[in-house]
Amino acid sequence: MASHLYIASTPAEVSSASGLHLITQNTPNGQATQILLEELAAVYGTPFTTSVIDISTNEQKKEWFLRLNPNGRIPVLVDNTRSGAPFPVFETSAQLQYLVDHFDKDHKFGFADPLEKSEAEQWVYFWHGGGAPYFGNLGFFARNAPDNEFAINRFKNETLRVFGVLEIRLSGIYTADKQPREYLVGSGKGKYSIADIKAWSWVQHWPMRFTKDDVKDFPHVVAWVDRIGERSAVKLGVGEKYKKQ
Amino acid sequence: MASHLYIASTPAEVSSASGLHLITQNTPNGQATQILLEELAAVYGTPFTTSVIDISTNEQKKEWFLRLNPNGRIPVLVDNTRSGAPFPVFETSAQLQYLVDHFDKDHKFGFADPLEKSEAEQWVYFWHGGGAPYFGNLGFFARNAPDNEFAINRFKNETLRVFGVLEIRLSGIYTADKQPREYLVGSGKGKYSIADIKAWSWVQHWPMRFTKDDVKDFPHVVAWVDRIGERSAVKLGVGEKYKKQ
Repeated sequence: MASHLYIASTPAEVSSASGLHLITQNTPNGQATQILLEELAAVYGTPFTTSVIDISTNEQKKEWFLRLNPNGRIPVLVDNTRSGAPFPVFETSAQLQYLVDHFDKDHKFGFADPLEKSEAEQWVYFWHGGGAPYFGNLGFFARNAPDNEFAINRFKNETLRVFGVLEIRLSGIYTADKQPREYLVGSGKGKYSIADIKAWSWVQHWPMRFTKDDVKDFPHVVAWVDRIGERSAVKLGVGEKYKKQ
Repeated sequence: MASHLYIASTPAEVSSASGLHLITQNTPNGQATQILLEELAAVYGTPFTTSVIDISTNEQKKEWFLRLNPNGRIPVLVDNTRSGAPFPVFETSAQLQYLVDHFDKDHKFGFADPLEKSEAEQWVYFWHGGGAPYFGNLGFFARNAPDNEFAINRFKNETLRVFGVLEIRLSGIYTADKQPREYLVGSGKGKYSIADIKAWSWVQHWPMRFTKDDVKDFPHVVAWVDRIGERSAVKLGVGEKYKKQ
């Protein structure tokens, strides 16, 4: 046991875990890594275990958690498969990258080509630093300050704007052949990858905050949401097993 | 000329550039890539050119720009050194990763070790999706809605919270030997890297929004800001040449 990672108050199911262990809750950020773990299990049989915590009690602000992620946010991935100490990975997007780097030898969900690899990083960063904070702040203000029209309008408009950025990409309007694509990155119509998983785990929740009329200018995005939602690993990754008992 | 990347309205200094070309403005996001380009030029002599645009006129929302970055945000890096078409990279953090992957063969600013590489990604993502949006929204509301106390307090408190996350890391309080570190990632006291560049380009601006009393609990962060600010490439990267004439 790595003494600085685990302390007396660390839950036993975390400190005694072997293999990949995800401390999560079924939020958009949690779902991204949950989905990729389910995809890797389906393709490679990669085993993993989970601890589902309740962030409404601020469990993630306790010292045992901060030692794994000083940012105090779920999910946290701990890789117990390496020789030496367990290796914790915080930030959902860094988890996606770590998992494709170390557990996806056939590049099913990432890219071997260096330019496609960069494009995947660009789209993951785009959603991580743009889409997620805008959509997340929209939810925060809608829940905690529903009368703060200025803030709600800002984050609603910015979320719709970033949906529009995905629409530019998926519709192909600025490409040489103007052909739409099915996934964000990859040649031709693209290949389902961590870039899609990252954005999808948030965009799928559009009906919580928007009407069909709000998203009428983003038909390729809506079709992409539905396309990815049909995957069995995606259904597992957002499903019942991640809901706190 | 790649017909779908460049159109008649694309500035000639962009479409005719050779080598690495950065379309930027001297904002925190622009500064991150500016700094790394200056560092690479200092170590390797890597040549690059820049176009400094004025985002207050929404130049970055025009079609010529959206073809390089559909998100309509500076900076954009275009790599004209590859065989075939120019390769545009959007998102500051993806630019940092691309530059260390392709232009930093001695790993001066990135990491060859896979776990250190992941730790650098974790800290880049942490700032990209946490620090930057919080600090950025604090500036947005302070400028555009100075009476919106609820929003300003939220983003002020969250920005101080993420300063505290950097303090946890730099102070070493949760590590086995409790020794402070000079940089965010790397063994021992750490090595200056893209993880530092990403966060520093924002955190250096703390005096714009906070008093010395506000940051009194973050002595390691303040020392780290000053330490990095002394680098000559950093001074160049935030300096006069990036100010619009």
